[in-house]
Amino acid sequence: MKILILGGDGFIGSHFVDQAVSLGHDVTVFDRFPYEVSMNLEHQRGKIRFISGEFANRDDLAKSLDGQDIVYHFICATNPAESWNDPFIEIEDNLRPSIKLFELAVSKRVKKIVFPSSGGTVYGPQYKPVDEKAVPIPLSPYGIVKLATEHFLLYFQEHSGIQMDIYRIGNPYGPRQPLKRAQGVIAVWMRDILRGLEIQVYGDQNTLRDYVYIKDVSYLMTHSLNSPASSGIYNLGSGAGTSIIRLLEIFQTVIDMPIKYRIHPKRQLDNTSIVLDSSKLVAHFPCFEFKRLEDKIFETWNYFKLPRPKLYRKLSVGKKGNLS
Amino acid sequence: MKILILGGDGFIGSHFVDQAVSLGHDVTVFDRFPYEVSMNLEHQRGKIRFISGEFANRDDLAKSLDGQDIVYHFICATNPAESWNDPFIEIEDNLRPSIKLFELAVSKRVKKIVFPSSGGTVYGPQYKPVDEKAVPIPLSPYGIVKLATEHFLLYFQEHSGIQMDIYRIGNPYGPRQPLKRAQGVIAVWMRDILRGLEIQVYGDQNTLRDYVYIKDVSYLMTHSLNSPASSGIYNLGSGAGTSIIRLLEIFQTVIDMPIKYRIHPKRQLDNTSIVLDSSKLVAHFPCFEFKRLEDKIFETWNYFKLPRPKLYRKLSVGKKGNLS
Repeated sequence: MKILILGGDGFIGSHFVDQAVSLGHDVTVFDRFPYEVSMNLEHQRGKIRFISGEFANRDDLAKSLDGQDIVYHFICATNPAESWNDPFIEIEDNLRPSIKLFELAVSKRVKKIVFPSSGGTVYGPQYKPVDEKAVPIPLSPYGIVKLATEHFLLYFQEHSGIQMDIYRIGNPYGPRQPLKRAQGVIAVWMRDILRGLEIQVYGDQNTLRDYVYIKDVSYLMTHSLNSPASSGIYNLGSGAGTSIIRLLEIFQTVIDMPIKYRIHPKRQLDNTSIVLDSSKLVAHFPCFEFKRLEDKIFETWNYFKLPRPKLYRKLSVGKKGNLS
Repeated sequence: MKILILGGDGFIGSHFVDQAVSLGHDVTVFDRFPYEVSMNLEHQRGKIRFISGEFANRDDLAKSLDGQDIVYHFICATNPAESWNDPFIEIEDNLRPSIKLFELAVSKRVKKIVFPSSGGTVYGPQYKPVDEKAVPIPLSPYGIVKLATEHFLLYFQEHSGIQMDIYRIGNPYGPRQPLKRAQGVIAVWMRDILRGLEIQVYGDQNTLRDYVYIKDVSYLMTHSLNSPASSGIYNLGSGAGTSIIRLLEIFQTVIDMPIKYRIHPKRQLDNTSIVLDSSKLVAHFPCFEFKRLEDKIFETWNYFKLPRPKLYRKLSVGKKGNLS
């Protein structure tokens, strides 16, 4: 199948590229490549096509959509903390360009769009594991616009007949999570430990999150490749709630460096608790088991603490500004 | 209480003004007044304050918010049919200016915002009466943005502590419904009958709507004045489903003019069926009963078929472009 992966050089996107390539699909990655190098997919060079473009540029996007069967849309310009005090960022940088993409995909006869939504923000405060039948009550601009984008996908399905899958992902973590962004507490803590800084712990025993290993996420998202002619909304979390205090204990067990920390009350933008019941999705993978958090925090730590291999060798750039 | 009513000269707004005045509140109406006259509130002259302004103009809006306790936000630039093929109209003309309003209201220390949402479009296809616990699945840009606006109100409540009430209104009808807009089948049919045109019937026995008389709507929305310090989401419909074919029969009984009609299959943008369970709201009004559809269609017809009284005498305009 011909798959276009928008934001395919990023954290979730690049892991999904690895999955799609291993299944033998024809993969194109659309991303910014500001330094004309691939950050995360050097090892796929020669096996996939790279397109360097701007998501907001209609021509860049239109060209990349030609002849594609499925589009995975991993581009997200914000994180929940960034837009907490400025809702308009979400509308301008995420909602509008996503709707433009959906319109273009319809006009290019793409069969299906896959959208990673946010299990951690669309549901709002919940006090037990939620499945997809729960009423979403997003309380942050980030979650509101994720949910509105889901609804616009349902509209395009109704209006234009394009298929769509939506994955409401928990708190993904693992190798390649960007350390610069204030998103993903596991990556942020590891960054601060490596820098010798005190890590900041917001919340208590009741501040539960559903941490899910990135390779579990990317594997389960291959479901859309197996069912191109249907549509669905799926939770994608481990189903286990881990408190922020328990996470700190795991760090203290696993990390082989001294950990300084400070515990704060939860911030207003943090939901009290979110745990996702993903039975609907996992039912499609009878042999699948979620990885253990302790094991994969250890693996993630080993990734981050090693000096990065020389990933940044320049790739050659073709005539159209694309990597080859 | 000091109440600002945005779009107060319109259909729902002006009926609410009548309610608020009859309860003795201090009422200000903000609207466009493009002809420097009030379309629907001439009879309130001297009892209320008129402000002529543009909703998109931040200064106009800011001035009108000074010192207000509660804001009723009846301004809506679109209808479901208009934005069915152009989702961006909803984002530009409704979502963005509404968020601007909420930000301004917070900065002006308004205590509560009241927002009329759309029971007919936020829930999506439903096959039995829905209450407020149902999962909303809006399928039109109009409904998607109504729901996103609700969520942004919840966000401002969480983020800034402002109170809000949301009314998910069924299909309101009655005097003052604008005949020019393609919204409100009862008004549209009456207009076409008066013009001697064939009326267009989209749907069948299973195309149910929850028609609710405008004075029932405006009366029930006074609930927000009784509870300024709390917030809530309320359905506001009669709880009775009327098929489009039954509506045609009522017209044939009530209307004293010949009716030509043509029956079509339902349009894609029409949901199959929507009936609202409004028990949560009605519980606050123990003696309240919804008016009979047959009676109020008769009353509405009598309103529309009479020549309009001379409403259009020019009101004097003050220095700041306001009516006095």
